[in-house]
Amino acid sequence: MPSRILLSEANLPRQWYNLAADLPHQPLPPLGRDGKPVNPQDLAVVFPMNLIEQELSQERWIPIPEEVLEILRRYRPTPLHRAKALEAHLKTPARIYFKNESVSPTGSHKVNTAVAQAYYNKIAGVKRITSETGAGQWGCSIAFACAQFGLTCKVYMVRVSHDQKPHRKVMMRTWGAECVASPSAETAAGRAILADDPNCPGSLGIAISEAIEAAVTDPTGQTRYTLGSVLNHVLLHQTIIGLEAQEQLASISEHKVDTIIGCVGGGSNFAGLSFPFIREKIHGAQIDIIAVEPASCPTLTRGPYVYDHGDVARMTPMLPMHSLGHAFMPPSIHAGGLRYHGMAPLVSQTVMDGLTRPVAVQQLECYAAAVTFARTEGIIPAPESAHAIAVTIREAIKAREEGKERVILFNLSGHGLMDLNGYADFLDGKLENHSLSEEDLLAGLSCMDGYPKPELVGV
Amino acid sequence: MPSRILLSEANLPRQWYNLAADLPHQPLPPLGRDGKPVNPQDLAVVFPMNLIEQELSQERWIPIPEEVLEILRRYRPTPLHRAKALEAHLKTPARIYFKNESVSPTGSHKVNTAVAQAYYNKIAGVKRITSETGAGQWGCSIAFACAQFGLTCKVYMVRVSHDQKPHRKVMMRTWGAECVASPSAETAAGRAILADDPNCPGSLGIAISEAIEAAVTDPTGQTRYTLGSVLNHVLLHQTIIGLEAQEQLASISEHKVDTIIGCVGGGSNFAGLSFPFIREKIHGAQIDIIAVEPASCPTLTRGPYVYDHGDVARMTPMLPMHSLGHAFMPPSIHAGGLRYHGMAPLVSQTVMDGLTRPVAVQQLECYAAAVTFARTEGIIPAPESAHAIAVTIREAIKAREEGKERVILFNLSGHGLMDLNGYADFLDGKLENHSLSEEDLLAGLSCMDGYPKPELVGV
Repeated sequence: MPSRILLSEANLPRQWYNLAADLPHQPLPPLGRDGKPVNPQDLAVVFPMNLIEQELSQERWIPIPEEVLEILRRYRPTPLHRAKALEAHLKTPARIYFKNESVSPTGSHKVNTAVAQAYYNKIAGVKRITSETGAGQWGCSIAFACAQFGLTCKVYMVRVSHDQKPHRKVMMRTWGAECVASPSAETAAGRAILADDPNCPGSLGIAISEAIEAAVTDPTGQTRYTLGSVLNHVLLHQTIIGLEAQEQLASISEHKVDTIIGCVGGGSNFAGLSFPFIREKIHGAQIDIIAVEPASCPTLTRGPYVYDHGDVARMTPMLPMHSLGHAFMPPSIHAGGLRYHGMAPLVSQTVMDGLTRPVAVQQLECYAAAVTFARTEGIIPAPESAHAIAVTIREAIKAREEGKERVILFNLSGHGLMDLNGYADFLDGKLENHSLSEEDLLAGLSCMDGYPKPELVGV
Repeated sequence: MPSRILLSEANLPRQWYNLAADLPHQPLPPLGRDGKPVNPQDLAVVFPMNLIEQELSQERWIPIPEEVLEILRRYRPTPLHRAKALEAHLKTPARIYFKNESVSPTGSHKVNTAVAQAYYNKIAGVKRITSETGAGQWGCSIAFACAQFGLTCKVYMVRVSHDQKPHRKVMMRTWGAECVASPSAETAAGRAILADDPNCPGSLGIAISEAIEAAVTDPTGQTRYTLGSVLNHVLLHQTIIGLEAQEQLASISEHKVDTIIGCVGGGSNFAGLSFPFIREKIHGAQIDIIAVEPASCPTLTRGPYVYDHGDVARMTPMLPMHSLGHAFMPPSIHAGGLRYHGMAPLVSQTVMDGLTRPVAVQQLECYAAAVTFARTEGIIPAPESAHAIAVTIREAIKAREEGKERVILFNLSGHGLMDLNGYADFLDGKLENHSLSEEDLLAGLSCMDGYPKPELVGV
């Protein structure tokens, strides 16, 4: 059997899969400041109506426009790899597969939704896009996508990542986008935070506030905001990952997957791989579906399921999700893409429904796993993806100890070539583990005092 | 027609193509210090005998070992892309294709030969590998390959690249290799140069001297040297690129290629793509085959065809090739992989035989082409590959001006994600063109005074 399973272009999925259609419980609605479900029209200053419709859709299958497919086809279907060298190294009876999203032009899965969002904005007449980025993978992806559709693009990049990863900014500029460090002096939200703390390292929550503000305050009305994770339509666009993986596994007669593993920050790469398999699970398949998060930002394992805002300035509606509190400031770990206080509502709901099992891991275990993966399989993974690899290695060792053949599939959401400072620190012994203290956890949660409780909201 | 043409694993070439078997003139032999053709045994302290045999082979087809194929299959066959967005941008009737070698684990074509060389060393009983690297693409590739076969690896990296591109060193370390800046104090060759100029920026010629010295002076006799370009066996291993491209073009009924374009430093990616097409040309096909080099290091366009050493300390045999002189110090352009005084003997001979047409281009045109490529096709190319893109754009514009349909194929030898400083300098307007002065050219050539002349060497 080959170690790389390709899928012909003819088998590229033509529809996205919408998990909302199959969940045992209807997803709860986003709430406005008045505590009532938001009206689609309320969101129209932020997003174009075609994406708002997708956000609220209950349709199971949503067709992928031909113009989007044409660009996705440059790198999709992505390969599915059998990690034979890693298996041999671990002496495990498990068969380990990974979906390789690192082959995209920007090096991560984020392009999948960036292309779709740029397309829908373009056909809605939008001229200018704003967005935020953490580690920079999303900022690069939306910059790339905007270049494809002739849209102007401005990205607010979390300052700590902006300074640690200057090359991501060069990439965005190469694709023609503008990139500024957040908090910036360009928005009221940014100025308010800088007034309080001029050295604020920033957070995704702050950058989101700035990007939304920049979109909704454009007097021409031709600017809209895009987001790289969390929202339903973003997760929807990522399901092409799991749909391809299902086809690829079937093509090699691997009919039963036991374990699906993805890292979670906002939830999009995890959802992209897992949701088509969660559908199988809802229909009776026995699959352990594991969402891996950093111990320093343990949204699913230690955050409550609440209604909370997606951003610090509370510009977004309140979303039903696991959250550490919109004012929570995650520590500056290298896996910048996992530094987010909240979690995609759909992912949160799969956890509430017992469909997804969250696990938190420490930084050192992740880097050790990443180096093992690089030396065996050859690819240097993104520090975010390394979280999935760490738990994959745990599960493969468990299979060895139990003497059980098992099929494990994880998502290699991106490569780590833009994140080598973290590897240098790890190899030099400079990295440390970090767990969120009980005190910091409670302090973060306090900003949500008095918010509506999900269990009290009818649909 | 799809924009990405895949090739199934079943069609992965099983043999390399050796152009030496088809050249109109027999290649001239390498010469020892005594001016006589070297004996294979003389090379045995540097290379294992199985690779020496390949170096001197006249066999047309050489089987690729299964152990090598198994690793190549992780990323090969690489995609062939139709650059439709670039075509549309240029409004050209030309059909532009490119072979995408950037999808390898290290981001360039160099892995193709690194895996083969590590394998042959391994089965010959070698335990430890030394090598040199310029931009770092080769150093990463041999580090990756050594990790696959359990070999210890030490890389001497040209100091200017080592300092400009620290992340390449982190990659080598992640794969388990050691990387030192060259000239170093660790070898006699390095110490001699540092004594003369403590701030010497280094060159591939110097780094080669150090790596060879480190191999041949190992008292255990278990160390051998590897090279990422220039030599016949290295070029041989790269021909898998062109062989795949031929299959891919045939699969879409594109039966006639008019123009083949590759950048040249030592010559390996160019040879890899072009040699199977040069075979067609020798058999009568009309193909314009263009080797693109930097105007600041114009080996083929301004260097004579001579016998010269491959390294500064004259540790290598004298090779028949175009050369600017082994003591030539190329300026510190960003395309570090093209900073080499010599050229692969086989590539040089195709130029002498009128099979290859060399062209020199300036740095600014290359970066402008690279940015155009990134904004249309999405991939940020290596500055080396940008040389091929610059001439591709020239040829596509010529086709438009002449109103001619033409088929152009170039090699995207690698991505530029590790070379973003050059993009930043270009976008900031800080880059300048640089041509080699007549004075510097003559000064460089003077080190070869009195060397044997190729035209006087019988075979």
